[in-house]
Amino acid sequence: MIITLKKNAPERDVKRLMQRFEKQGLQVTAIYGEEFNVFGLVGDTSRLDERTIMANPIVHNVQRVAEPYKLANRMFHPEDSVIDVSGIPVGGKKVVMMAGPCSVEGRKQICRIAKEVKDAGADLLRGGAYKPRTSPYSFQGLGSDGISYLAQARKETGLPVVTELMSAEHLDEFIDQVDLIQIGARNMQNFDLLKAVGRTRKPVLLKRGMSATIKEWIMSAEYIMSEGNPNVIFCERGIRTFETYTRNTLDLSVVPIIKERTHLPIIIDPSHAAGDWKLVESLSLAAIAAGADGLIIEVHDDPENAWSDGQQSLKPERYAQLVNKAKAIAQVVGRSL
Amino acid sequence: MIITLKKNAPERDVKRLMQRFEKQGLQVTAIYGEEFNVFGLVGDTSRLDERTIMANPIVHNVQRVAEPYKLANRMFHPEDSVIDVSGIPVGGKKVVMMAGPCSVEGRKQICRIAKEVKDAGADLLRGGAYKPRTSPYSFQGLGSDGISYLAQARKETGLPVVTELMSAEHLDEFIDQVDLIQIGARNMQNFDLLKAVGRTRKPVLLKRGMSATIKEWIMSAEYIMSEGNPNVIFCERGIRTFETYTRNTLDLSVVPIIKERTHLPIIIDPSHAAGDWKLVESLSLAAIAAGADGLIIEVHDDPENAWSDGQQSLKPERYAQLVNKAKAIAQVVGRSL
Amino acid sequence: MIITLKKNAPERDVKRLMQRFEKQGLQVTAIYGEEFNVFGLVGDTSRLDERTIMANPIVHNVQRVAEPYKLANRMFHPEDSVIDVSGIPVGGKKVVMMAGPCSVEGRKQICRIAKEVKDAGADLLRGGAYKPRTSPYSFQGLGSDGISYLAQARKETGLPVVTELMSAEHLDEFIDQVDLIQIGARNMQNFDLLKAVGRTRKPVLLKRGMSATIKEWIMSAEYIMSEGNPNVIFCERGIRTFETYTRNTLDLSVVPIIKERTHLPIIIDPSHAAGDWKLVESLSLAAIAAGADGLIIEVHDDPENAWSDGQQSLKPERYAQLVNKAKAIAQVVGRSL
Amino acid sequence: MIITLKKNAPERDVKRLMQRFEKQGLQVTAIYGEEFNVFGLVGDTSRLDERTIMANPIVHNVQRVAEPYKLANRMFHPEDSVIDVSGIPVGGKKVVMMAGPCSVEGRKQICRIAKEVKDAGADLLRGGAYKPRTSPYSFQGLGSDGISYLAQARKETGLPVVTELMSAEHLDEFIDQVDLIQIGARNMQNFDLLKAVGRTRKPVLLKRGMSATIKEWIMSAEYIMSEGNPNVIFCERGIRTFETYTRNTLDLSVVPIIKERTHLPIIIDPSHAAGDWKLVESLSLAAIAAGADGLIIEVHDDPENAWSDGQQSLKPERYAQLVNKAKAIAQVVGRSL
Repeated sequence: MIITLKKNAPERDVKRLMQRFEKQGLQVTAIYGEEFNVFGLVGDTSRLDERTIMANPIVHNVQRVAEPYKLANRMFHPEDSVIDVSGIPVGGKKVVMMAGPCSVEGRKQICRIAKEVKDAGADLLRGGAYKPRTSPYSFQGLGSDGISYLAQARKETGLPVVTELMSAEHLDEFIDQVDLIQIGARNMQNFDLLKAVGRTRKPVLLKRGMSATIKEWIMSAEYIMSEGNPNVIFCERGIRTFETYTRNTLDLSVVPIIKERTHLPIIIDPSHAAGDWKLVESLSLAAIAAGADGLIIEVHDDPENAWSDGQQSLKPERYAQLVNKAKAIAQVVGRSL
Repeated sequence: MIITLKKNAPERDVKRLMQRFEKQGLQVTAIYGEEFNVFGLVGDTSRLDERTIMANPIVHNVQRVAEPYKLANRMFHPEDSVIDVSGIPVGGKKVVMMAGPCSVEGRKQICRIAKEVKDAGADLLRGGAYKPRTSPYSFQGLGSDGISYLAQARKETGLPVVTELMSAEHLDEFIDQVDLIQIGARNMQNFDLLKAVGRTRKPVLLKRGMSATIKEWIMSAEYIMSEGNPNVIFCERGIRTFETYTRNTLDLSVVPIIKERTHLPIIIDPSHAAGDWKLVESLSLAAIAAGADGLIIEVHDDPENAWSDGQQSLKPERYAQLVNKAKAIAQVVGRSL
Repeated sequence: MIITLKKNAPERDVKRLMQRFEKQGLQVTAIYGEEFNVFGLVGDTSRLDERTIMANPIVHNVQRVAEPYKLANRMFHPEDSVIDVSGIPVGGKKVVMMAGPCSVEGRKQICRIAKEVKDAGADLLRGGAYKPRTSPYSFQGLGSDGISYLAQARKETGLPVVTELMSAEHLDEFIDQVDLIQIGARNMQNFDLLKAVGRTRKPVLLKRGMSATIKEWIMSAEYIMSEGNPNVIFCERGIRTFETYTRNTLDLSVVPIIKERTHLPIIIDPSHAAGDWKLVESLSLAAIAAGADGLIIEVHDDPENAWSDGQQSLKPERYAQLVNKAKAIAQVVGRSL
Repeated sequence: MIITLKKNAPERDVKRLMQRFEKQGLQVTAIYGEEFNVFGLVGDTSRLDERTIMANPIVHNVQRVAEPYKLANRMFHPEDSVIDVSGIPVGGKKVVMMAGPCSVEGRKQICRIAKEVKDAGADLLRGGAYKPRTSPYSFQGLGSDGISYLAQARKETGLPVVTELMSAEHLDEFIDQVDLIQIGARNMQNFDLLKAVGRTRKPVLLKRGMSATIKEWIMSAEYIMSEGNPNVIFCERGIRTFETYTRNTLDLSVVPIIKERTHLPIIIDPSHAAGDWKLVESLSLAAIAAGADGLIIEVHDDPENAWSDGQQSLKPERYAQLVNKAKAIAQVVGRSL
C-alpha cells in the first residue's frame, strides 16, 4: 500500500501515523518528493481501510498495489478452472451453449423449447421461474411450479438447467432441482445471497451488475468463494450507459480481462445486453471470437406472444443458424462447440 | 399506449395485431403518416408488455403515454404525504436531520455519538449494524449486537434510529427495534426484500440504486406500496458516473422531480455521494436550497480511527456548524429546521 | 410527430396549438385517452423544434416517429455505400486493415513502420501528425512535418494514409497529401470542422465522440453529407463509462446497428478503446466476427520508447499474427481480408 | 511519480529502466514488497508519458503524485482569482447573474429581453449567435448579425455580453464586440480553439464537456492559461449519464472541488443541465448555496415560440422571482447578489 502525504504535514503527525502502521507489523519506507512525501507499507495490508486512512488530514492519497481478491486471482492459481455443471465442463476447450425462453410459461412450453434448443445444439437449458421485474404489476414468474417444469424438461431432454435465484429462501429447491444457480445482475451485490450460495457446492452463474466495475464483480465472486464454493462462472450481460439504441452496452473487453486476472470461466449473454434479437447473432459471434467460454441466449418459438422480453428472443431456426456459424468461429480461435 | 408500425407492413398483419388489442378491450385509433402508421390504444394497457409487442416484425416502436406507477403518482394523490417516523414527521415543513457514524462500533461509541449529534441538532440517529461491503474481508458490521446498541442509544437520547436491512431474515428484529428501515442502494431492486418490507407498516428509507433511473426508483417504491405499506421516503445518495474526484455524482435535480411526480418525501445523503467530508457542507446546503425534506449525514468523533468510511465523516463540531447554516437556508425556502 | 397533451388542458389552448400546426401545412389527428390526449402530425415536421413545443404548458410529451437523418439513412438508400480511399474500397467484401504508430515521430520511423505493417498485411497507414492531447505540456505532434513524412512513407510503400485533422486551417495540406481525413472523437461535434470537410470530396473517417449516442454520431455524418460529401466512414473507438480497467468501453453493438440504420461503412479502433495492447487481438477478432468493415490498430516497433500511447501499441510481429487470425474469422463471416 | 513493477521482473530489465530515469535527472528510491516492487521518482516528471512507461512489460502500474495542472493549481496560487468582465468582477463577493435567450432571434428581441433581464437583476446578457446544433437541419444561429444585435443590446442596457465562439475564424469579431467568450461543452477539447482564445486576454467562459472529468476540464483551462490568458471562468452545465428525466445531470460537487483545487471562479448553468424550466429555480438556489460564483440562465419572453430550447427557458417574471430568492440564499453563505 502506498500512502502520499502532504508536503506541509507536521513532522509529529507523520511520525504518529507511521508508528501506527509499524505497530500493526508493517514495514514503512519513505520517499521524500518535492511536492509530496510517499510512504510504502510492506506486509499484510488487507486489514487496512483506505477510506479511513484518507480521513487523516495529512494524507493526500492512498493506493493499493495488490488487487483485493485472492481466491479468484490468477496470480495465486495460474491454471484455468473448469467448472463441472452436471457433467458439462465450463471453461474447457468446448464453448458451452445455454439457451431457452426468458420465462418458463408452462410445462408444455418449456419442454417443447428444450427439445428445440437441444436439436439446435444447446448444452444447457435456461428459463426464468422467479423473475426480477421493474414493475410489481408485471408477470413475476411461475415460481416453484416453474422450477418443477424445468426439472421435467431436463428429464425429457437430458439438458442441465440454469435459472435465477432471487432469495435464499428458495435455496433448497434450487439445490435439489437446478444444475446451475444464476445470481442476477440486480443481486450481484446482495451479499447475503452471495454468502448463501457460497455455503453450497452448486455451480453459480454470477451476472455482472448493471453498473459494476470488473473489480467489484470479481469481489462478488470472492464472496462466494470465501464461503467455500469455488464453482463460479462469470456472465457479462451489458452495462448501463447513456446509449438508448441498445438496452445495455455489451462490454466484450471483459473476456480477456477476466481471463488475465482470474482463473474462472466467463460466458456472454448477448440477449439482455442488446435487448433486440436482430443484434444477437453479431454479438454472439463476436463473443466467441473474443475468447468467451460460452453463450446464454434467449430462444422462444413464439416471441410475439412471449410472456416477457419477446423482442430479444431468437426463434429456434435462427438459433440453429447461429450455432452453426459459432462453430466455425470457435474453430478459428482453437475451441470446439 | 402508442404503437408505430412500419409503412410497408402487410395489411393482414396489421389487422391481426389490431384485433388482438381490441379483443383485450382496448380501443384502437389509427393515424396514417408518410413514413409510418401510428396506432393509439385507449383503455387499461397496464397488462401489455412493450418488449413483447416489439417482437412483432411490423412494429417500429412502442411508447407508453402514462407513467407505470400508480400508488406513488402525484397525479392520483395530489397532496404531499408526510411520513411519521416514531413521532418525527418527514415531508412536512420541518427539514429532518439524520446523523451518526457509518458503522456501529460498540455500545459506548454509538451512545456517545448519539448524544453529540442530538446536541448538534439531529432528529434521528443513523448507524450501520449490517454492512454491505464490497470485500468479504472487510468489517461486516456488528449485526444483531449493533441493533441492540442502537436501541440502547435511542433509549438514552430519545432519538429514533435508522439502519440498513440487508436480508428479510432479520426483519423481525428491525420491526421490534428500528424506527426507519433503510433499503440500501445495492438492494434497491432486490424485489423480494422490497415485498417483505412492503408487508409491514414500518417507514422505509429507499436509497436510489447506483445506476437506477428515477423511474426505476419510483417503481421500487411502488413495489413496497403495492404490498400495503405507504410509508416510503426516498433517499438520493449519488449515482455512478465516469468522474473519479468524487465517489459518486450527487443528482440534486431529483428533488424537484420526485416532488412533481410523486407525493412522497425525499432526503439527501451527501456523505456517500461525495465520499469526502470536505464536500459535505456545500452539498448539504445545496440540498436544502433545492427543497429536500431532510439530510442523512455521517458523523464520527474520531474519523481517523473509524471502522469504515472515515474519509466522509464529519466531526461533531463541524456537523453542528453545518446545522446552523442549514437552518438559515431552510428559512429562505420556507422551511424550518 | 406525436404530441401528448395533458388531459386537463383548456380546450381553447388545445385548439390554438393545433391551428398553429395546421397553418404550417401539417395534418392533425387526435386520439382521446383516459389520462392524456394524443395528437399525430402528418407532413414535413423537420422544421419543428421538439424542445420549443415542450415549452407549451399543456404539452406532456413530444416524440418524433421518423429518424432525423436523411442522407445517411438506409431507408432512402438501401444499398451499401462503398467508399473509395485512393483505390482501396471500404465497405465492400474485403475487410480493410489500417495500422501504424500513434504519433509520427520522424521520417525514418514512419517509413520503417509503414514497411513493417505493409508486410504484415495492412492496407492503409495511420500516424498522428496533429495530436489532441489532454495536457498542453504533452507532445503535440510534428504537425506539418509529420504530414510530409507520412507522404514520404506513402511514396515508399504505396499505402494510402489516414491522419487526424484538428482545425480547418490545415485542410489544404490534408487535401493535397492525405488520403483519408480523420475527425477525432473530441471533434465529433465540432460542427464548423464537419462543414469544412463536408465541402470537400475527400473520404472522412468519423470517430465516435466519447459520450456520443449513435444517433448524434449519425447526425454528425449527416452534417458532412449535407454539405455535399458522401464519403463518410464511421469509426467506433470506445465510449466513456465508469469502468477503470479499460481506457474506454468498446461498443461492438454499433456494427449491426450502423449497418441496419445507415448505408455507410463502419470500422473499429480497438487500440484506443482498450488502451492496452494485451486486449487488442481479442477485440479485433470480435470486431470482424461482428461484421465490421475494417480495423485501425496502433503498431509501433519500440512501444516502450514511443512518444505517445506505447501501452496500447502492438509490435509488428504481433500485428502480423493478428492479421492471420483475422483472415480466418473474416472468411467465416463471408468476407475476405 | 510512483511506478509499481511486477515481482518476477528480471533484475537486468529493472536496472535498465531505472537507469533510463536516472539519466533524465530523476532520483529513484525503491521499496521492495511481497507482491510488487515500488519505485518512487523524484524530480521533474512532467515530461514522462505514463502510457509509454506502461508499455514496458515489467511495469504493473504508474501513478502520478502531483496533479498535472500548474497555472490553474491553487497549490501555487493560494488566493482566489477575480476575473474582470468589462467591469463586472467574477469570483469576488458578489454572485454574478448572466441571463438571456438561448438564441439571438433579432435585434428587437434581444434588446427587449436584455432590458427585461436587467430589470430583473441580471449583470450580463447571454444569447447565442453561432449555435452548435446536433442536426444540420436545425436553426444554426444568426451568426455575425446576431453578434451585432448583441452589441446593440449592450449599448442600450450597459450589460456586458457573453456568447459562444465555435471557430477561431470569428475570433476578431468576438474580440471587438463580445465581453466574455464562451467555449461550449462540445468544444471543451477543441485544443486549437483553446489555444486561439489563450492568445488573447479576453475573459473565457469554459463550459465542462458532456463527459469530461474535472481533471480534463482543468487541463483545458491550463491550455488557455499556458498560452498567456489567465482569465478563465469555469461553467458546469451538467454531464451525460443514463438518466432520461433530465437532459443532463447537474454535478454541484464541482463547486467545492474547483475551489479547493484551483483559484479560478466557477458558475453554474442550470438551464442546459436540467433541460426543463420547472427545475431551474431549485437548481439555481442549490448552486448558490453550494458556493457558486454565478449563474447563467436562459430567459425568454415567449418560450413557446422560441427558435430553440423553449422548454428550458424561464419567463422574465419567473426569473425576477428567482433572483430575489437567490439574494437571500447568497446572504446566508456570506455573498451578495
